[in-house]
Amino acid sequence: MDIRIIDKPKRGEWKSLCQRCVDDNTVIEQRVRAIISEVKDGGDTALKQITQRIDGYAPQSIRVDEATIAAASAQVSDKVKKALELAKANIEAFHKAQMPRPVMTENMPGVKCWQKPVPISTIGLYIPGGSAPLFSTVLMLALPAKIAGCKRVVMCTPGQRGGKISPEVLYAAHLCGVDEIFMAGGAQAIAAMAYGTESIPKVDKIFGPGNRYVTVAKQILGAEEVAIDMPAGPSEVMVLTDDTANADYAAADLLSQAEHGPDSQAILACLSLDFANKAKEALLEQTQLLPRKDIVEKSLKNSCIVVLESIEELTDFANLYAPEHLIINTAQPWDIADNITAAGSVFIGSYSCESAGDYASGTNHTLPTSGWATAYSGVNLDSFMRKITYQELSCEGLESISEAIVAMAEAEGLDAHANAVKIRMGKLGK
Amino acid sequence: MDIRIIDKPKRGEWKSLCQRCVDDNTVIEQRVRAIISEVKDGGDTALKQITQRIDGYAPQSIRVDEATIAAASAQVSDKVKKALELAKANIEAFHKAQMPRPVMTENMPGVKCWQKPVPISTIGLYIPGGSAPLFSTVLMLALPAKIAGCKRVVMCTPGQRGGKISPEVLYAAHLCGVDEIFMAGGAQAIAAMAYGTESIPKVDKIFGPGNRYVTVAKQILGAEEVAIDMPAGPSEVMVLTDDTANADYAAADLLSQAEHGPDSQAILACLSLDFANKAKEALLEQTQLLPRKDIVEKSLKNSCIVVLESIEELTDFANLYAPEHLIINTAQPWDIADNITAAGSVFIGSYSCESAGDYASGTNHTLPTSGWATAYSGVNLDSFMRKITYQELSCEGLESISEAIVAMAEAEGLDAHANAVKIRMGKLGK
Repeated sequence: MDIRIIDKPKRGEWKSLCQRCVDDNTVIEQRVRAIISEVKDGGDTALKQITQRIDGYAPQSIRVDEATIAAASAQVSDKVKKALELAKANIEAFHKAQMPRPVMTENMPGVKCWQKPVPISTIGLYIPGGSAPLFSTVLMLALPAKIAGCKRVVMCTPGQRGGKISPEVLYAAHLCGVDEIFMAGGAQAIAAMAYGTESIPKVDKIFGPGNRYVTVAKQILGAEEVAIDMPAGPSEVMVLTDDTANADYAAADLLSQAEHGPDSQAILACLSLDFANKAKEALLEQTQLLPRKDIVEKSLKNSCIVVLESIEELTDFANLYAPEHLIINTAQPWDIADNITAAGSVFIGSYSCESAGDYASGTNHTLPTSGWATAYSGVNLDSFMRKITYQELSCEGLESISEAIVAMAEAEGLDAHANAVKIRMGKLGK
Repeated sequence: MDIRIIDKPKRGEWKSLCQRCVDDNTVIEQRVRAIISEVKDGGDTALKQITQRIDGYAPQSIRVDEATIAAASAQVSDKVKKALELAKANIEAFHKAQMPRPVMTENMPGVKCWQKPVPISTIGLYIPGGSAPLFSTVLMLALPAKIAGCKRVVMCTPGQRGGKISPEVLYAAHLCGVDEIFMAGGAQAIAAMAYGTESIPKVDKIFGPGNRYVTVAKQILGAEEVAIDMPAGPSEVMVLTDDTANADYAAADLLSQAEHGPDSQAILACLSLDFANKAKEALLEQTQLLPRKDIVEKSLKNSCIVVLESIEELTDFANLYAPEHLIINTAQPWDIADNITAAGSVFIGSYSCESAGDYASGTNHTLPTSGWATAYSGVNLDSFMRKITYQELSCEGLESISEAIVAMAEAEGLDAHANAVKIRMGKLGK
């Protein structure tokens, strides 16, 4: 286990410390485009063939039936069920409070405008497979979709070894009110939700994490065919500490990020070389205890500990990096938090570890990575809604802005735009 | 001039009536990728070379200087200035009312979550050129950016014949507080704002319409490099009428859409063949008066008049089409409007013509086309902001959810996630 310590880098060097791992997806992109067009043309049959070819099992039925979902409940431990109930309650409380309000203004007498939030109708969730599927993501996506009022929430998830879906994933989906569950994974599942097949409905927006094939499929289809939650990249955390922080906590937080995958990034920015060394020691010690030690050692190679000079520098460095997760573990954390302008989710103080937000505090864990926090929010209630605007002008209302409309339309060379006003004002051709 | 009338189509046929013109962008995409990589590598020099090669002029300076902006004011008529002031006031009133509120919940004692809206820092606006540039779009993008509190709002727009920018565009930009103006157009301008050049800053999000090169550049860069407002397609309107409506108004509204470009689409859905024929006659008559008659005749070929059977059918047809602009000109327009689930902006009643919203009612005119209204909002104040979440857990707060976190983390096979809690609860290794 090793991790770089960079002592007091100059501001000019900060940008290079904020670099993320960038994958070259050229080869994957070609394969994904082929999969997309196969599913677009071939529907369910293509989906089954691709699943057989890539994942090595042939799903008898793409739709997961009620009996299978009901049976899953018996296989989930009471401890996990209780945990899911608690997490669900907190996530619901925070997301319900986010309900946007309708807006109405009367800008001039008889010129009224409204903005009305409306749920997106059909939502597609993707939940990756793997040996221990991340069922917590089901809660983070399905609960706000249901709170927003989305009519049809469907979920695709691949079968594990031989075509079985993890009971925790099925149970969580059932608990959160997912309407339909399909056994489909990878780029082919994303394509199926984008175009629709005989089994899987065409959805309006696709949410959820995935491997590089899934990410590339979402990227391609998101530009042309279907809305997606946000661009995806490897997960990351930045931890800010002063000398009052507990180095063991900081190390534990870095490791809880590093275990996600070899391309994860965990950065500690602290205020003394002494603290940096203590954190490094703690990292070394804690890593030895972890079953996912191999992954951690790889991801710590993309990671670093940076020693900076002041609370102001910590703040600026965080805003430049724009982390997915930002943990502020200093004596006065809000001094930094109030000045954060780019981050996905912020964890305040000694007891707000990232895993609290990953599972159960109530915030969403689907967050912008790779610096996208400069322009994107994490998944929140808005992600499942649109805002439609309305305007109603009375005859007097239109009259009061008619000259302005005609002047602007004519200056833009759009006479028919002007005519639509003139004809109503009885002035066309006069 | 001709336009199809479809009398009482069966519901099964509706979908085909909702088809949009789809461009094949394969060739354009290759050219755009070449332009993007040229600008990425070559900065300002490449930008000037491409402008010379494609647009036939060499800008002396990419940045438009203060003197040029000041001089533009003298060239804009008082009538247009007065119109811009009125439009600005209405757009500001409606967009200021959209300011999102912060959200805070205490989900359990000591488990507090916040969601805080934060402006996006650097915004890039693209305003297309052409013989009569659409300066109204400057208002629609710059005003909400400034209300949101974006720090740096930059604008790219191409020079017209020989490298001069329309004075109306410069004046509108100045009026709305655009911070920096650059003479750059096409895909190269989009690439410049995505990567930054010596003159043009790298922006966090790009807004604005454009030709197919601009659209493709935004699509490519939006998937990988920079956030964009929304996917773009040709402009469109749907007009709903009953027999109480004025057929001349309906025709004028269809034409104000049709004049945008040969690929625009204007659909009238009404309740009798008699009204359909009256509207067609009015279209014929009014088209003759239009200077942009040639464009209108082409776009009416993509358009149609559909006769449906009931108010309910009008509503369902509109929701299926998901129009950018929806005009409801019936006796009881809110009976339909209240049930609209997919549209960009809705115009209620006889006096709410599309051109009112295009210029001056206060709503935004940058709206989702091509059916994207099923998943996207039009540009609104949210478009210029992100929402960052925060959580602060007390020791007791973490304790109350610690079992849930540990149970879920362990079931997901993420031991380091569990450890971050255990170490704080003093239970690591115990």
